Amino acid sequence: MKIKEYLQQQKLLIDQALNDYLPGLTERPEVLHQAMRYSVLSNGKRIRPILLLATYQALNGTANVVPAACSLEFIHCFSLIHDDLPIMDNDDYRRGILTCHKKFGDAIALLAGDALLTHAFQIIAKEQSKYTSASIVVKLIKELAEATSTQGIMGGQAVDILAEKDFTLHCAETLEYIHRQKTAALLVAAVRMGAILAKATDRQLQLLGEAAGKIGLAYQIKDDILDITGDQVLLGKATGRDEALGKLTYPVIYGLDYATARCKELLAEAVSLLDFLGNSGTRLRILFRFLVERRY
Amino acid sequence: MKIKEYLQQQKLLIDQALNDYLPGLTERPEVLHQAMRYSVLSNGKRIRPILLLATYQALNGTANVVPAACSLEFIHCFSLIHDDLPIMDNDDYRRGILTCHKKFGDAIALLAGDALLTHAFQIIAKEQSKYTSASIVVKLIKELAEATSTQGIMGGQAVDILAEKDFTLHCAETLEYIHRQKTAALLVAAVRMGAILAKATDRQLQLLGEAAGKIGLAYQIKDDILDITGDQVLLGKATGRDEALGKLTYPVIYGLDYATARCKELLAEAVSLLDFLGNSGTRLRILFRFLVERRY
Repeated sequence: MKIKEYLQQQKLLIDQALNDYLPGLTERPEVLHQAMRYSVLSNGKRIRPILLLATYQALNGTANVVPAACSLEFIHCFSLIHDDLPIMDNDDYRRGILTCHKKFGDAIALLAGDALLTHAFQIIAKEQSKYTSASIVVKLIKELAEATSTQGIMGGQAVDILAEKDFTLHCAETLEYIHRQKTAALLVAAVRMGAILAKATDRQLQLLGEAAGKIGLAYQIKDDILDITGDQVLLGKATGRDEALGKLTYPVIYGLDYATARCKELLAEAVSLLDFLGNSGTRLRILFRFLVERRY
Repeated sequence: MKIKEYLQQQKLLIDQALNDYLPGLTERPEVLHQAMRYSVLSNGKRIRPILLLATYQALNGTANVVPAACSLEFIHCFSLIHDDLPIMDNDDYRRGILTCHKKFGDAIALLAGDALLTHAFQIIAKEQSKYTSASIVVKLIKELAEATSTQGIMGGQAVDILAEKDFTLHCAETLEYIHRQKTAALLVAAVRMGAILAKATDRQLQLLGEAAGKIGLAYQIKDDILDITGDQVLLGKATGRDEALGKLTYPVIYGLDYATARCKELLAEAVSLLDFLGNSGTRLRILFRFLVERRY
């Protein structure tokens, strides 16, 4: 199966599960559920859930890991909704449609983000625990919480916002910190959670986590390249925003050529870390390549 | 020991643990950690952690349940920080000091709230699991997530905000819904989490949860009474805000006399639900009474 077909197939599976695991439109408070569903069920690539599934499959796992996969998308969507708010990046479009606050107002968007963050943990504790031992569920929650914490997404978003106003923070070290926390942390969690569910050894967990960290960094550099060179329609969001906001990005600091070369280098390093998987790692390697070479 | 001494003693214990479990001021990103610590370590009553401890003690538990108790305060503080934001209630003072966004700006306050919500789940998974079996930890996370979800705090806050602008929602049924979700849900979780940690039976859990639901409702009615009759300095926040915001409250709909009588009635019902605890329930009953009869 080609990578695009695989992605499409897995996306359908995840989309269906996200729909099932979100609170219903007719349940009270309806408007909050509408806002949550509007943002989550928009046309996302589902990269994080698919990374979890692909890692799990590479390690020959066979149980139902879909709830844990969905929890990653809930966290991702929460972070996008809050990041798009006027008090943060003030974005009007996301995934080709109006951002949550443009559609539902700032207060409901704030609460929808909070509710999705909560929902992520609730789904693992409630749904994943039907298929998995309690000790694994606790490990999954630790991973997810750490990736979202001030040592993960929240930390990255905070420094990202601070760096917009403070040019003394514009250095390579801060940039890498922001990328690692804001983007790579959740991709690392996706891969590690897949491995934990497949009962990977500590050594396997470490190698996979390290590889995912490199891919996460490359993924964000590619995002910043696409913000300059990408197609606005294909991307579903405005381009040129980084420059307008004075964001600290790889292409801004190093130029497009070096940024592109760095992506390639990180991809090669990440792929070689998967050697231990042998043939079962083929799809995960292809997925890694897709994430770094994508055009949207 | 008198109730005030007991509360003071438990508050000291909780304050110390909150300090220990929060990320340090010198850890990166410093300003985000400062904002989290500023809001959490302000002068709160620590009602929710103390309710967990008192329930656990009433059931003769003896293990370390402090991490789970702290998680309740993290959730409470997250909800206050977001509720105080300009896009929500736009409050300037909380617990006698400037609100988080007045001190650190809206973006950092938003992220500090998100980080505290995440931290609550992280602390249970990471710290409570040192003392408790994984299956109990998963149950605790389910309770905490449900209380915070759209069937709890988030749902209550959403309808509360909607009711400010939509007077067709100003009815007794909506009011009770808001109170139950926004306030009672976390108090119910506090009591139920204490009971789960003490390995209570399903019947005990049900009775304690029902009692806490009544106390939670009475606690919020009392809050609304104090917003009219209370001492601004003693309360540490502005009074008369509910009327200014057009909030739907018990005294507004029913008048102060009926609101006061309803508090008494709910307290009596809650206390009688604790009969099964016999003498070991004395302190929990006194705590219930304090929560409803307090002046701050």
